[in-house]
Amino acid sequence: MSAERGRFITFEGGEGVGKTTNIQFLADWLRQRGVDVMTTREPGGTEIAELIRDRLLKAHHGERMSDMAELLLMFAARAQHLDALIRPALAAGQWVLCDRFTDSTWAYQGYGRGLPLSDIAQLKSLVQDDLEPDLTLWLRAPLAVGRARVAGRGELTDRIEAEQDAFFQRVEQGFAQLADEHARITTIDAALPLPQVQAAIVAAVAPLGELA
Amino acid sequence: MSAERGRFITFEGGEGVGKTTNIQFLADWLRQRGVDVMTTREPGGTEIAELIRDRLLKAHHGERMSDMAELLLMFAARAQHLDALIRPALAAGQWVLCDRFTDSTWAYQGYGRGLPLSDIAQLKSLVQDDLEPDLTLWLRAPLAVGRARVAGRGELTDRIEAEQDAFFQRVEQGFAQLADEHARITTIDAALPLPQVQAAIVAAVAPLGELA
Repeated sequence: MSAERGRFITFEGGEGVGKTTNIQFLADWLRQRGVDVMTTREPGGTEIAELIRDRLLKAHHGERMSDMAELLLMFAARAQHLDALIRPALAAGQWVLCDRFTDSTWAYQGYGRGLPLSDIAQLKSLVQDDLEPDLTLWLRAPLAVGRARVAGRGELTDRIEAEQDAFFQRVEQGFAQLADEHARITTIDAALPLPQVQAAIVAAVAPLGELA
Repeated sequence: MSAERGRFITFEGGEGVGKTTNIQFLADWLRQRGVDVMTTREPGGTEIAELIRDRLLKAHHGERMSDMAELLLMFAARAQHLDALIRPALAAGQWVLCDRFTDSTWAYQGYGRGLPLSDIAQLKSLVQDDLEPDLTLWLRAPLAVGRARVAGRGELTDRIEAEQDAFFQRVEQGFAQLADEHARITTIDAALPLPQVQAAIVAAVAPLGELA
């Protein structure tokens, strides 16, 4: 394959901050500039990984899922997603826009649930090797803003969304810590009006290619 | 809980060597001697772990499961099984007889599929910490013997059972290597007549408690 490797862009942030809307916006914006783009999501993204996602997010009333089992399922889905979809697409020159990736694992399972960050680091290294996103857009909004948007959708909450406020505050602090540590993460103020959010996304993405 | 910790006994070996029959025999033998016994199996053993087992063993025609995803699913099911069932039972003084455990992962995913043993060692350490079986009974029989017994059952084969002979030969070599390395593993000649197999099992188990 002689194509230039595609770019790998991940979207992170809490529920209701606009990840889905803005991934679709960015995919359209890139396609209009001739970029071959694929959008996907985690956990999930392939048939097998979506089946694992289904296991992860469903409540099991008779039995509590152990934190380590949850963490391993997350990385099992990620291994499948990377091997079956993301790595082949990038190698073929496609750009991949992914709704959540390993930063969500650090934030939710690490900072949120309190699993040792060293355990996550070991699993990340097993599954990703040296693959990292070229750019991560952290859509940041106050918890209340995201909550209100999710409530407005009228959807049922899943097992992780049903957690308490203190959990989501730890998750947000986790994202903030990650953004401090990694230059690849750009923080986007998702509480601004949508045109301003999208202008900020374009400004962050444009340097990745010859785009205008 | 002041009860003495229960004993953890695992049964290993290829398909058709008699694990199910002999676990049931040993459970009955122990119960007749007043031991509180639980039997279980891997992958599986709890509601959530059985759902993961289901994902692991089903073929997906549109998509090949990556080796790393398979390995992580195996350990996710094991983490759940240990946390929800095995550790609480042992702590309460129950003896646990388990059909397959981590030695099968070394043998099938490590020696069979060729995944790095160091990857398995990392996952084992994350999930088991310092928990090891007190005794592992490796039921050893020539491949042809196990194959003939499985064929006699007339069951459909699952995704792993459908592998080729060379795979199963590597698995057997893996078990042999493990038995050399670990004193907790007792090799039982499962090609002998059943009464002799069961006498050998009793001889291996009796020293674990005050049993006669």
